[in-house]
Amino acid sequence: MGNDRGLTPQAEDFSAWYNEIVQQAELACHSQVRGCMVIRPYGYRIWELIQGALDGMFKATGHENAYFPLFLPKSALDREAEHVEGFAPEVAVVTHAGGAELEEPLVIRPTSEAIIWPILSDWIQSYRDLPVLLNQWANVVRWEMRTRPFLRTTEFLWQEGHTAHASQEEAEEETRRMLGVYRSFMEDWMAMPVVTGLKSESEKFAGAVRTYATEGLMKDNKALQAGTSHNLGQNFAKAFDVRYQTEDGEHEYVWSTSWGVSTRLIGALIMAHGDDMGLILPPRLAPVQVVIVPIWRNDDQKSIVLAAGEDIVSRLTEVDVRAKLDVREGMNPGAKYYDWERRGVPLRLEVGPRDVEAGQVMSVRRFTPDGEERKRPIQVESLVDEIPALLVRMQDELLAGARNRREASTVRGVESMDEFRSIVDGQGGFVFTGWCGDEECESRVKDETKATIRVIPDEEFRTDPAPTRCLCGAESRYEVVRAKAY
Amino acid sequence: MGNDRGLTPQAEDFSAWYNEIVQQAELACHSQVRGCMVIRPYGYRIWELIQGALDGMFKATGHENAYFPLFLPKSALDREAEHVEGFAPEVAVVTHAGGAELEEPLVIRPTSEAIIWPILSDWIQSYRDLPVLLNQWANVVRWEMRTRPFLRTTEFLWQEGHTAHASQEEAEEETRRMLGVYRSFMEDWMAMPVVTGLKSESEKFAGAVRTYATEGLMKDNKALQAGTSHNLGQNFAKAFDVRYQTEDGEHEYVWSTSWGVSTRLIGALIMAHGDDMGLILPPRLAPVQVVIVPIWRNDDQKSIVLAAGEDIVSRLTEVDVRAKLDVREGMNPGAKYYDWERRGVPLRLEVGPRDVEAGQVMSVRRFTPDGEERKRPIQVESLVDEIPALLVRMQDELLAGARNRREASTVRGVESMDEFRSIVDGQGGFVFTGWCGDEECESRVKDETKATIRVIPDEEFRTDPAPTRCLCGAESRYEVVRAKAY
Repeated sequence: MGNDRGLTPQAEDFSAWYNEIVQQAELACHSQVRGCMVIRPYGYRIWELIQGALDGMFKATGHENAYFPLFLPKSALDREAEHVEGFAPEVAVVTHAGGAELEEPLVIRPTSEAIIWPILSDWIQSYRDLPVLLNQWANVVRWEMRTRPFLRTTEFLWQEGHTAHASQEEAEEETRRMLGVYRSFMEDWMAMPVVTGLKSESEKFAGAVRTYATEGLMKDNKALQAGTSHNLGQNFAKAFDVRYQTEDGEHEYVWSTSWGVSTRLIGALIMAHGDDMGLILPPRLAPVQVVIVPIWRNDDQKSIVLAAGEDIVSRLTEVDVRAKLDVREGMNPGAKYYDWERRGVPLRLEVGPRDVEAGQVMSVRRFTPDGEERKRPIQVESLVDEIPALLVRMQDELLAGARNRREASTVRGVESMDEFRSIVDGQGGFVFTGWCGDEECESRVKDETKATIRVIPDEEFRTDPAPTRCLCGAESRYEVVRAKAY
Repeated sequence: MGNDRGLTPQAEDFSAWYNEIVQQAELACHSQVRGCMVIRPYGYRIWELIQGALDGMFKATGHENAYFPLFLPKSALDREAEHVEGFAPEVAVVTHAGGAELEEPLVIRPTSEAIIWPILSDWIQSYRDLPVLLNQWANVVRWEMRTRPFLRTTEFLWQEGHTAHASQEEAEEETRRMLGVYRSFMEDWMAMPVVTGLKSESEKFAGAVRTYATEGLMKDNKALQAGTSHNLGQNFAKAFDVRYQTEDGEHEYVWSTSWGVSTRLIGALIMAHGDDMGLILPPRLAPVQVVIVPIWRNDDQKSIVLAAGEDIVSRLTEVDVRAKLDVREGMNPGAKYYDWERRGVPLRLEVGPRDVEAGQVMSVRRFTPDGEERKRPIQVESLVDEIPALLVRMQDELLAGARNRREASTVRGVESMDEFRSIVDGQGGFVFTGWCGDEECESRVKDETKATIRVIPDEEFRTDPAPTRCLCGAESRYEVVRAKAY
């Protein structure tokens, strides 16, 4: 419950700050199994809100949910060459079950392409069966060496979309559509601006023709890959022999995509917005949007303010605001303020006996644009009008603030390795540079600076005029966004 | 999609009928891994509707969702003696991960008590931390020898509630409360009447003090255990040393419960209501509540009826009815009727050119009480009033019908083994008898007849006067419900 340990300032040790937030805001904790976390109720409620929003967007774009098994025979993983190379080293393997050794070991899904495609080969016969637009909410397991809550865990929760199409164009369109869905979700719900674009060959999904990603910038100016959308071409269709009969009676391999986001998004939320007081949650994803803290000195006052608090909760619930009255005993109001600030609740309403008499509450915002006053009294009568509007405004302000911060941490037109190195080792952030397109050059820059090519950005993010030189001095073929990343 | 293979009549081979429904209504299919099924979109949508309803009921009774890991160290399972004995033979074990052999093998959760309790020992310090009211939606794995889609699969989806309380009374109250939640859900949403009661010692959950269950009766007159709620006493608190400080400063072990229902409920839905035409879904859990089938002979008619169909879908969507227009080409209306009947859609609206002219549709119910006409024209203008009301009535009628069938298949006051055997081998159904309370007698009856004690029924289900003799002739201590079961 309440916790008055201090929080390490971000500027001092961002990583320590992150771990403390996860623990003190009761988002997650460690389990008995290395690298597996427990998602606590407050953290899981954020995930439920994320799921609800995304699931609605997936259904609105024609997708249906299904559920495929946790296990695949080891031989199935081996069917697509790049895919097995990418995933084989990090899978967990079941060798015994029901008290006996299995004839063929079973792999726990690290992702489900190799489970879904053998099934789709039964479901898809003709062009009439296409497109197939599926999504699955599931747990997956990847045996990671270095784990961090939400950002990289051995088991994690995610959604994985899997689709099959009659043409290359349709598959590409779907890949881009879902990238757009992710971007909208991240901006409109998470209040996190992202750069979208294409991954380089070395960073793409094992088995994909093209991987697109959304990249957010965290408050320590490191990038975080928040979602990916893969055009798989005919790779899996060929590996699992999934063909359909066209209108003309021909038999063609289908074209496919897959796309996913995970509980990593909670890590993104923490690091995109949090400050030295704690978590900052965008109103649309806050389990508690408004907390009401009653203030009393004696039992008479207590019954008055608690009744007023309950009345406010029901007024706000009526207009679909997630409101909670903090009735905890033996904890003073200051400690409650501190606790809810740590947990990132957007809005606090303080209710004392005088407020009740005056028919008002003191509202205190968790964050405001620079210089704006956090505190303001609001009449109880007008709460149902003002609070929903204020939450919408706060959501917008959070996005605008994050966008400004991202812009302030973006440098364009960098053409020399020295300048690049000094930015990366200094302020960090997104650095737009040219790239010759050579993989060796890409990996050399990565080795020297720890900064990687995040994406070849989509057109709207590109610099005009485009950079002419790569960091290596050769002619630039692509503009790229580079950054140190999670 | 459409499927015109016939369905084996229930009376001929209920088991074949079941398997064909699962396949032809596209609820599930087999995967590459023995005993693991794929839940197809239509089946998964039913599960989503089940989840939505139950989740709301859990939250309304104060529970929060969380997520605990898939794995537990083998040693943790061993901590509670009865629990390990019950589950050890059927677990799946991970011995290798990340390319190396693990120091300690990991068990994939068959249920999560042994994962959750070590964590709760950190969360619970004082009486202020109680009660802890958690629920988890998750996949679990139990290596079953004989599997059937939905009824018994190696991996299945479920929810598992886990709670901790300060007293025995509170734990018992919670166990009973959740049994009541399950019963309400099964009756109000699934339209499936259930008998509730206590399991005998031999049938209780491994590690529980008392297991309560809800038992439904399927259309082949076999019982199905649909949900269980366990009072775990202090068994897990002692095994994992979970104590709390009371208000008086004493240290006491907490009292706990767990309760769960699974994708087995979809099997229950199929077998509680289906008929020789196919699935019958209760309106509240039907992915499609109303299907609109347009009828045309030429392109002019086609554009008229499709426009009318779209208009009807938007009218119905407006009043929260899940409606779908079947626009499939190359399939005649009769085949569409057949297809949607197979899939259990409660209501069909047929729209031909003359109907459009007359401003009406022909409504056809999937099921009616005996003797009532299935077909009735409805004015388009009044659809938004009539359809929601009709769906409510159909939901009630389905429950009433199932209740009548259950009563007709229930025999009370059976005191002789001969009579018992002839009922069990004949019509089947629930048989209320006395029981001497002896475990050997219980298992002898089971061996001889394949019928088991389903529950010691709750008071409202008991016979008055109570039976005086057990089937063995000894004095009866408990009235019990016996049946052959899934």
